Amino acid sequence: MKNKLTAPMNITGETRVYVVVGDPIKQVRSTELYNKLAADKGLDVVFIPLHFSAADSEAAIAGFRVFKNLDGIIPTIPHKPAFLKMVDELTPRAQMVGAVNSIRCTDDGHWLGDIFDGVGYVNGLLANGRSPAGKSVLLIGSGGAGSSMAFALAEAGVGRLLIFDTIMDKADRVAAGVARYFPAVEVSTGEPNPRGFDIVANATPVGMAIDDPFPINPELLTPHQLVTEMIMQPEVTKFLQAARNIGCDTQVGYEALKGQAQANMEFFGLK
Amino acid sequence: MKNKLTAPMNITGETRVYVVVGDPIKQVRSTELYNKLAADKGLDVVFIPLHFSAADSEAAIAGFRVFKNLDGIIPTIPHKPAFLKMVDELTPRAQMVGAVNSIRCTDDGHWLGDIFDGVGYVNGLLANGRSPAGKSVLLIGSGGAGSSMAFALAEAGVGRLLIFDTIMDKADRVAAGVARYFPAVEVSTGEPNPRGFDIVANATPVGMAIDDPFPINPELLTPHQLVTEMIMQPEVTKFLQAARNIGCDTQVGYEALKGQAQANMEFFGLK
Repeated sequence: MKNKLTAPMNITGETRVYVVVGDPIKQVRSTELYNKLAADKGLDVVFIPLHFSAADSEAAIAGFRVFKNLDGIIPTIPHKPAFLKMVDELTPRAQMVGAVNSIRCTDDGHWLGDIFDGVGYVNGLLANGRSPAGKSVLLIGSGGAGSSMAFALAEAGVGRLLIFDTIMDKADRVAAGVARYFPAVEVSTGEPNPRGFDIVANATPVGMAIDDPFPINPELLTPHQLVTEMIMQPEVTKFLQAARNIGCDTQVGYEALKGQAQANMEFFGLK
Repeated sequence: MKNKLTAPMNITGETRVYVVVGDPIKQVRSTELYNKLAADKGLDVVFIPLHFSAADSEAAIAGFRVFKNLDGIIPTIPHKPAFLKMVDELTPRAQMVGAVNSIRCTDDGHWLGDIFDGVGYVNGLLANGRSPAGKSVLLIGSGGAGSSMAFALAEAGVGRLLIFDTIMDKADRVAAGVARYFPAVEVSTGEPNPRGFDIVANATPVGMAIDDPFPINPELLTPHQLVTEMIMQPEVTKFLQAARNIGCDTQVGYEALKGQAQANMEFFGLK
């Protein structure tokens, strides 16, 4: 079972600490994957969840600043904007996306921010033999995950990218950014009609809650399209299940998480 | 090997967090014991080390105040005084000792401080069939561990207690406290001559460093005395080794840690 990764751990005062921060926190499963990857490599590190509200992020960050054995922070919802402001430096990728979801804290107190949602998503596609190069993608959502995916798909050579967001200004901003950095990509924004797209990617959290609507009407999907999620729980969302029923190929959120964890481990120097 | 307790862990967003704080931190080994005890009980908790300087304790504590999944704090050197000031409530034992080395953080943000060094030490004696009841004890050191041990030994019915400290005022204060709460105990302060004592207890950190002197001259020890340490590393201090060479019975610091961990787990409600 993918969601039960037990890691043999031996945490002492020499163990280096990484925190995954969010509010809520209970849905977080990335820690078990990171701990398993680290344990497999024989590394003396531990990834733990820390729960605080957005209103308390300043106090939390002030604390993090003084923890000398804290080597990394993985901000999730709703803390990404606060940590974006707090890092000392952004990688070119994070500058491009305008967001961070990983911070490397060096011993001299320097915080470097990068973002791996999109990279992880593309790594997930590649690991399963589904290169997005030259493909057409309907991207639903242009928030933290969505914007990161847009840039990563562009970097991976996607042919055509249509971005939809319920706040269309956000989608327009991401599309403009992709057009600026990747002029070869045919990028636009518009209504989320999946007809004719090779890949339909849900980058919204719609589908996490049992009574959520579909992110888009699944009846518009056609067989042989690849439909993907970033949602981790449930592993198979109602939308993915509907896509499967139609005959679509699917990728669960966990595949993107695995791809992200690998990229993030490298960023943290955990080899 | 006692110092390699691997615990099978599965840390997710539902895992509750406990921190052991200190400066330095590398010598901390209690986390592996707590994690092992918790894993054996099937509890979804993790104990991690956090390293910050005494000068940064205010920022660290402000951070701890906002971590909603933080259930407990174990302050070690040099943070005990700062946390003593920060707790909302002290148990009667912590009031008596005037120190804390364990804080239970409840969901409503209430911090309750207790102290278990001494209880753990006595638990270690009892677990090895060495009840201090009616015995005479030379206690070397009246700091955090020493004062806690003085009260725990008194509570366990020790007959006679002599407390020595290089700062004699400290020893006098602890002796006065013990006399007040446990009038049946013959308690005094004075030079650390072990002659005639059943138990010689080192409660100082002298012996942690390789070039440390002896806490007291081991040549004054006599066979069949019980000589005990609170130091965790090295497991067998130079002083304990000298005592063994003379023919003394010994108790290593790890035994007190085990006794302390059991008491502390109960305090945290980790059953």
